[in-house]
Amino acid sequence: MSLDIAAKTPHDQLAEMLAADMAAVNALIRDRMASEHAPRIPEVTAHLIEAGGKRLRPMLTLAAARLCGYAGPYHVHLAATVEFIHTATLLHDDVVDESTQRRGRPTANLLWDNKSSVLVGDYLFARSFQLMTETGNMRVLDILANASATIAEGEVLQLTAAQDLATDEGIYLQVVRGKTAALFSAATEVGGVIAGAEEAQVRALFDYGDALGIAFQIADDLLDYGGTSAVIGKNTGDDFRERKLTLPVIKAVARANAAERAFWTRVIEKGQQGDGDLEQAIALMQRHGAMEDARSDALMWSAKACAALERLPNHPLRDVLAELADFVVSRIR
Amino acid sequence: MSLDIAAKTPHDQLAEMLAADMAAVNALIRDRMASEHAPRIPEVTAHLIEAGGKRLRPMLTLAAARLCGYAGPYHVHLAATVEFIHTATLLHDDVVDESTQRRGRPTANLLWDNKSSVLVGDYLFARSFQLMTETGNMRVLDILANASATIAEGEVLQLTAAQDLATDEGIYLQVVRGKTAALFSAATEVGGVIAGAEEAQVRALFDYGDALGIAFQIADDLLDYGGTSAVIGKNTGDDFRERKLTLPVIKAVARANAAERAFWTRVIEKGQQGDGDLEQAIALMQRHGAMEDARSDALMWSAKACAALERLPNHPLRDVLAELADFVVSRIR
Repeated sequence: MSLDIAAKTPHDQLAEMLAADMAAVNALIRDRMASEHAPRIPEVTAHLIEAGGKRLRPMLTLAAARLCGYAGPYHVHLAATVEFIHTATLLHDDVVDESTQRRGRPTANLLWDNKSSVLVGDYLFARSFQLMTETGNMRVLDILANASATIAEGEVLQLTAAQDLATDEGIYLQVVRGKTAALFSAATEVGGVIAGAEEAQVRALFDYGDALGIAFQIADDLLDYGGTSAVIGKNTGDDFRERKLTLPVIKAVARANAAERAFWTRVIEKGQQGDGDLEQAIALMQRHGAMEDARSDALMWSAKACAALERLPNHPLRDVLAELADFVVSRIR
Repeated sequence: MSLDIAAKTPHDQLAEMLAADMAAVNALIRDRMASEHAPRIPEVTAHLIEAGGKRLRPMLTLAAARLCGYAGPYHVHLAATVEFIHTATLLHDDVVDESTQRRGRPTANLLWDNKSSVLVGDYLFARSFQLMTETGNMRVLDILANASATIAEGEVLQLTAAQDLATDEGIYLQVVRGKTAALFSAATEVGGVIAGAEEAQVRALFDYGDALGIAFQIADDLLDYGGTSAVIGKNTGDDFRERKLTLPVIKAVARANAAERAFWTRVIEKGQQGDGDLEQAIALMQRHGAMEDARSDALMWSAKACAALERLPNHPLRDVLAELADFVVSRIR
């Protein structure tokens, strides 16, 4: 491996190795996001899709199918499906969160309106459903239907768990699976299924996607509090201000004494936050080893993702997926 | 036929003839709208589903399957699917329309919030998708995926066509198919497909549902202006105040002279409405025969629905479906 390659992120490597497949996915996405009758639809979707997310989820599907030796056409449909589901959830999330920025651009709900975001999201869900139906594979439909339900359920759970100190690590995992891991694991699993991989490999692909998603989300939670260094940067504390029960907070609350519990009740449940409260929250999380333990959890999930890959065929794509599992926690190492 | 039966609406007759099937559908709906993890979900869905809509769509699926001789279990899954898709669209519609009342009760977006309505709607879509996947029938998946896309597309189109005098009858039909007819026609079509009916019968079932939905919607449009009697009642003019381009308005606009066009531009496009404008709108629609022509269109679609039924096996349910097609336009006869 040349130095040049070594310096590339796993994401860039995947993009290079899957370039031909991704070109087909992008063409299919462009074709299917159109609407003969309602020009508002491609306007909204183009705004979001062409803003160029990382396209990580479709690449996971392509990589899974390829490393299981798939040579048919349908991994492209499934990759586009996964990206459509992701885009639809982003549109609806921005309505739910009343967001104004996404990928550095104004959100669709801001540029058009909430109505367009809701309905165009529904359109993309329906389109994703058409795309996956074209594969003619009942099992991938089953997997993606279940993932869609898990995603929606996790989002509702997040809504009701938000600002509730009773949220425990079990609920947290449920929310994270809905938010991130369910689509990651479905993306990898359907790649294996469409390739006709044997059961143990399909299971390994699911486990990889699931663990990757969870590791990614915990790392994100930690970084929002400045990571383990706890250096307060520009974006530090967004989750705190939004009173989210993320993993380090949940761990610190579980270990809180009475005075600390009163603090958490005030800043998270009641939302009464003032100067110094973010620093105090970070200090409490560090005192109880909550940051350190959350970091260990993330590394454990990352290791779990890598272990799952060992049950898959030896393949250059498998090596990059391992690097990816490592990469998502590199920011908190 | 006894007088007692004759006095019943076609809807009541369907409910009686399909009572055992509908009990199974309701049990399945109750079972699948639950969520182990997120109690907010059954709260919201129960609020809407137990408000007791007419359950017309699931009955269409059951009737179609039964009159084609189906004896398996999956018409129940498909009927529940169709009701879930319908309920999901209602939840999202109420967010889009900022509605406060539905079926005589406060809407979910009012009782909880828009967020819950968006996400629980997504959950029901995902659940509907799981339900239909359980049938193992690729073709019904294809039909319902296409219907979902048509529904979403029609809703977006309605959003952009609203208050736009350029909306013609072609766009109107597209919107109506999205709003009403696409789910009606999918409901009847999948009933035939799951029963293994022959192609001509499946097509007849589609045509029936499509025509029924369009007839229903045009009748609704007319009634909003007091029907052909043009008697101004309590709910008369809701569409006018919301500046909707419904069929009688579209016809009147197409036949307007310059002065009339200025009137429509003011009240619909600019939304400047004052005392007497509703009466003036009705007078213009009557002067140009727009009400009368819309009424003819509705009757034509109703007749088309009945004609489609003649391509289906002779069956008591077929007779009730014919009565239903007649019933939806009885209010404007």
